[in-house]
Amino acid sequence: MNAVLDHLRRQRQHHLDLLFDLISHPSVSAHGTGVRECADLLCKLMRDGGIDARVLPTRGQPVVFADVPGRPGATTTIMFYGHYDVQPPDPLEAWLSPPFEPTVRDGRIYARGAGDNKGQLLAHVFAVQAYLATGAQLPVNVKFLFEGEEESGSPNLVEWAKANLDMLKADAVITSDGPKHESGLPQVFFGVRGLLYVELEATGANRDLHSGNKGGIAPNPAMQMAQLAASMKNPDGTAAIAGFYDDVRGPTPYEREILSRIPFDEAEVKRDLGLGELARVGDLSHLEKLMFEPTVNIAGFHSGYGGPGSKTIIPSKAIMKMDMRLVADQDPDDIYRKFVTHVAKHAPGVVVRRMAGGCPPSKTSPELPVCKAVVRAVGRAAGTAPVVLPALGGSMPDYIFTKVMGLPSIGVPYANPDENNHSPNENLGLEDFYSGIVTSAYIIDTLGELK
Amino acid sequence: MNAVLDHLRRQRQHHLDLLFDLISHPSVSAHGTGVRECADLLCKLMRDGGIDARVLPTRGQPVVFADVPGRPGATTTIMFYGHYDVQPPDPLEAWLSPPFEPTVRDGRIYARGAGDNKGQLLAHVFAVQAYLATGAQLPVNVKFLFEGEEESGSPNLVEWAKANLDMLKADAVITSDGPKHESGLPQVFFGVRGLLYVELEATGANRDLHSGNKGGIAPNPAMQMAQLAASMKNPDGTAAIAGFYDDVRGPTPYEREILSRIPFDEAEVKRDLGLGELARVGDLSHLEKLMFEPTVNIAGFHSGYGGPGSKTIIPSKAIMKMDMRLVADQDPDDIYRKFVTHVAKHAPGVVVRRMAGGCPPSKTSPELPVCKAVVRAVGRAAGTAPVVLPALGGSMPDYIFTKVMGLPSIGVPYANPDENNHSPNENLGLEDFYSGIVTSAYIIDTLGELK
Repeated sequence: MNAVLDHLRRQRQHHLDLLFDLISHPSVSAHGTGVRECADLLCKLMRDGGIDARVLPTRGQPVVFADVPGRPGATTTIMFYGHYDVQPPDPLEAWLSPPFEPTVRDGRIYARGAGDNKGQLLAHVFAVQAYLATGAQLPVNVKFLFEGEEESGSPNLVEWAKANLDMLKADAVITSDGPKHESGLPQVFFGVRGLLYVELEATGANRDLHSGNKGGIAPNPAMQMAQLAASMKNPDGTAAIAGFYDDVRGPTPYEREILSRIPFDEAEVKRDLGLGELARVGDLSHLEKLMFEPTVNIAGFHSGYGGPGSKTIIPSKAIMKMDMRLVADQDPDDIYRKFVTHVAKHAPGVVVRRMAGGCPPSKTSPELPVCKAVVRAVGRAAGTAPVVLPALGGSMPDYIFTKVMGLPSIGVPYANPDENNHSPNENLGLEDFYSGIVTSAYIIDTLGELK
Repeated sequence: MNAVLDHLRRQRQHHLDLLFDLISHPSVSAHGTGVRECADLLCKLMRDGGIDARVLPTRGQPVVFADVPGRPGATTTIMFYGHYDVQPPDPLEAWLSPPFEPTVRDGRIYARGAGDNKGQLLAHVFAVQAYLATGAQLPVNVKFLFEGEEESGSPNLVEWAKANLDMLKADAVITSDGPKHESGLPQVFFGVRGLLYVELEATGANRDLHSGNKGGIAPNPAMQMAQLAASMKNPDGTAAIAGFYDDVRGPTPYEREILSRIPFDEAEVKRDLGLGELARVGDLSHLEKLMFEPTVNIAGFHSGYGGPGSKTIIPSKAIMKMDMRLVADQDPDDIYRKFVTHVAKHAPGVVVRRMAGGCPPSKTSPELPVCKAVVRAVGRAAGTAPVVLPALGGSMPDYIFTKVMGLPSIGVPYANPDENNHSPNENLGLEDFYSGIVTSAYIIDTLGELK
């Protein structure tokens, strides 16, 4: 391990040069241009460092895949997932340096894809290459799965994975994407909430009506929608949709223990959000709500007059957009059916449209030895215990690993909390990049100790 | 009476010329220019026909007033109210002929102010002048009250009236404004609903939040507003604001009888509005709802994302605009206090703003002899019974007559139902203009029979 760390220290400039090569190459999957060439570039970079990578076709952009056997007798196999495609760089005029001309300023690499995700996926590549270069025995079998359509919603990964399940066998998928904990501490997470998005439309008369001439005669779709929204909540803040909680798996005793150790400064959160009180849902703690409790959220509600002053109308329609964050083991299809049943019962005639972009929740037990080992490894690398989250409040297609591939999935982000991913001036701290490589080396080393 | 009617037939062209003079003169009270000159013009027109009219100052635009004594021993005094100011003519490009160049096309006079209200107020003037010109004895005392700020909300009339109550004594105020019944039949009405308009603002965090990262922790002001709106309705559609109905006076037996005779084609109303069912409020008939039942109406509700597709946010605020149509004897100030109390109880923190433009309801008993006489008069003039409405669903400052002056108030519109008042191509049918003058003559004649 010391040889690996020494090697990594000596290779810093070289690794930075290689990262610059990769992020200099635009690979915006939303635009479709340059993505395949970027896959070739990444594959060559891996092969140049001794990894037998291949570019494999999917129905969309290709996958870069590699299978690196560990030392004889290595029993653990980990798969590093990442994506080499990037978000569009717009608005270009907001960038202080061009998005595809990486520039170091104040200890940070500024470029589209620096942190999301090229810098983070290369951390895994460089760690493995360090083992190979130094002749240190790789204590685990390592697979690499780098896709080229993550920023477009991974539309072809599920089908491709189903056709290649044998090739994808592993003891865990490890993903480094997104930022570390906002405190700056490293963090490890074991799941995400799922997402179901719907748009509802209530219709009244065929035109806005004079609220005096027709008030009392014509139904008001804004009121119908408001009553429908209200019907979805119990007085304690929980959802009032029949069967909504049927498949909710609460935290285990071990997860409760983890929850209790997560830093959460309620006063600071209130101050930051400008709130006198945070929301209440039953008796749950804030972090339990965020990670183990589903939500029914109004993202938008629009009906009738919204300009200055007053206009006395009965609106002809009302539109409401809602998102539901789902937790294990809720199934979006099942929840959608229950939601539609609720609407039909409480607001007949209101139309429900299911929107694209949803995904099931995903959950990996943090009690698995491989999970505990990753937490230990991150702590060894950082010299301090990471923040361990049973799940994130947000949503990502993590289910592709846990439900489609049937593998434990562990998130270990390396980027700085202010990485500006998806925004202008995306950046990755130089030290975050280097320490990410070291962390990957520690993960490999620590997981090698698993029996 | 025959002499009066003969005279009116001979004077048609002259009356049309005088109307053209008056509507050729712009008098947009919202702009303030030309209004005073129009008062002078109207006063001169009245004096030229033998009515001793005067232009009287108010804090705003002047009032044109006249007091014409009836024959010796005339005991009944009626006051004709009207307004000589007009709405702005915008959008000018939508007019087929210039708004202040009156043009007759297809039997209609097209001009701003033709029906609203110059053509209708002149009908009263010409009827009285016909009595004076023919030497027929005027069977009632007649007063004229024509104001110049009606289209601006009559901001100075209440104060002026309070200072001149003696001068304004009468047995009834008669107003010809707005259109006849949509069937084309003449109509008479005895009240209006009042109006209270409020804007509510619910506030969450100081910015829109990511619905995953903060979902469950941050309150959702759109949901709070929806719950507040829903809390204002009982399951049967009635308002659930405590004390809301305390001062509601239901229809008298006589008013119920009137209600039962009003034409209401439910199937046609549904077809016109594109509705499968009309709204239900308890067991009330549609017309009873419209005339005797107050409403709590959402005129606008806006919060969060309203664009295409989906955006996963917790909105930072929600705005709701509501109007309440009030019926006798509800008091807007009292209802506003009850509304604020309801909001404070059900949605603490939601801000309520009372908007300008409200007014109390107004109600005159249709059983008064003067009211029954007007209905008879309109029937005599038209050769058919008019539609008699206990009240209109809409709102006008009728309370100035009933509550401030303490007088019965009767509405007798003369304009065609498609007069386009407040819109481009405002028009008044030639026959509606002439028959309006005749109707005023019959009103004078019939009210002369009152003891």
